Amino acid sequence: MTRIRDVSVERISADVRSSDKDRVVVEAPLQLRARGTPVATIMRTPGHDLELVRGLLHAESVVPRDEAPAIEQVDEDAVNIDIDASAFAGRGLLSSAACGVCGRVAIADLELRAREVRADTTIDHRVLASLPDKLRAAQEVFADTGGLHAAALFNTRGELVALREDVGRHNAVDKLVGWALGTRAGTLASRDDGPVEPAQCVLMLSGRAGYELVQKAIMFGVPIVASVSAPSSLAVELAERFNIALAGFVRGTKANLYSHAWRIL
Amino acid sequence: MTRIRDVSVERISADVRSSDKDRVVVEAPLQLRARGTPVATIMRTPGHDLELVRGLLHAESVVPRDEAPAIEQVDEDAVNIDIDASAFAGRGLLSSAACGVCGRVAIADLELRAREVRADTTIDHRVLASLPDKLRAAQEVFADTGGLHAAALFNTRGELVALREDVGRHNAVDKLVGWALGTRAGTLASRDDGPVEPAQCVLMLSGRAGYELVQKAIMFGVPIVASVSAPSSLAVELAERFNIALAGFVRGTKANLYSHAWRIL
Repeated sequence: MTRIRDVSVERISADVRSSDKDRVVVEAPLQLRARGTPVATIMRTPGHDLELVRGLLHAESVVPRDEAPAIEQVDEDAVNIDIDASAFAGRGLLSSAACGVCGRVAIADLELRAREVRADTTIDHRVLASLPDKLRAAQEVFADTGGLHAAALFNTRGELVALREDVGRHNAVDKLVGWALGTRAGTLASRDDGPVEPAQCVLMLSGRAGYELVQKAIMFGVPIVASVSAPSSLAVELAERFNIALAGFVRGTKANLYSHAWRIL
Repeated sequence: MTRIRDVSVERISADVRSSDKDRVVVEAPLQLRARGTPVATIMRTPGHDLELVRGLLHAESVVPRDEAPAIEQVDEDAVNIDIDASAFAGRGLLSSAACGVCGRVAIADLELRAREVRADTTIDHRVLASLPDKLRAAQEVFADTGGLHAAALFNTRGELVALREDVGRHNAVDKLVGWALGTRAGTLASRDDGPVEPAQCVLMLSGRAGYELVQKAIMFGVPIVASVSAPSSLAVELAERFNIALAGFVRGTKANLYSHAWRIL
């Protein structure tokens, strides 16, 4: 099973730009079947799949403490558990690297409901490089506890639009998007300068850029996603497919551009 | 809404030990109701709850793209959405900081199925301090991609028992526990030195110690959990309740002990 994938990247270092290869960790769906019936799909890094499922069944108390139903690998993308599907009833969720896909039987339906970002929005690489410091400066709680993820919207001039924090990185993005949607619907927030236009924004993340965060960016319609850390393989694939520039390891004057590098000038 | 909580901590720095206060980020359940019917519970840091729920409904396509059902705060622990509960059918999961609790109507049932760790296992603080370096040395993929979380079991002499990595931190722990369970059942792994005894182990985490990871440690029966980073409020509470020593910010000769510090000698 492949746990690392080579991807093309454009590296920015100061004002120098070069094409290169980078290695990203693989994130891929694993379908769980109960005696052949699909019961859940989880996102994980391939490898040790049987152990993963056994640990998960244990942690979620899907099986009694001392039972160990047989688990077999069907193929790279699926395992089968010798247990009745009813054991999963009412457990829509199983622990996952990307909660957004849990409980769905396939990844395909996520793609169906997302739209490609059409705007031709771009950002200057120096503006991009300034965002991590601005994110940290705007974080209220992180410095105190070290325990909060942040997600922020900036405009393409590098001005902070809004920032939200949460112990869960997905929650931070949901809070941010929920706020922005409120400026459009006029129900949750009012702004002197009108509703937030996601197509003109950059989403900046304090942590890693996994599949689900990029999915949320796509659903929202943000054309540029930047992270101070690493992306996953699936995040890169989705960003590529949906016309989003995905920048990782944005630190100091450096950044790695994993998709649609034309958006970074 | 409280986003930070003061907790008691024992700080270790070199051979000096002192009692102090520390601040941890609050992690707490939020119940989602659809016209009064509980449909999901998510873990989050309190604050911006209405925006969180709006963003989540949008990301998960629970409501059509241009609809914005009214959302109101019932109390600190619950919000009510003006939508029929059937909109949540088949969506066991909602994005969450702690997937293990999604789709359950309360946190209480998690406590019911977990046991207090009874073993009086202890570890020398110098052995504890050595674990982060050993964890990093054992990680195969992180150095390459920066994108993988790791979870490892050590014995109380500081010897590595096993390590697993995944793009999802929950998955890394599930893989590790699944492997260890296999050594007991004799089905997935065989070891010359017999089955893994969780009560004699330390669980070391490469990332933050949130509620769900501590919950998995409790389910497995590990008495000591160590992390290089910050714990959440709920992780501290659970560790305290279930007789687990929770060490955070284990770096160099320093560590913060958030619960049952008597296990660290």
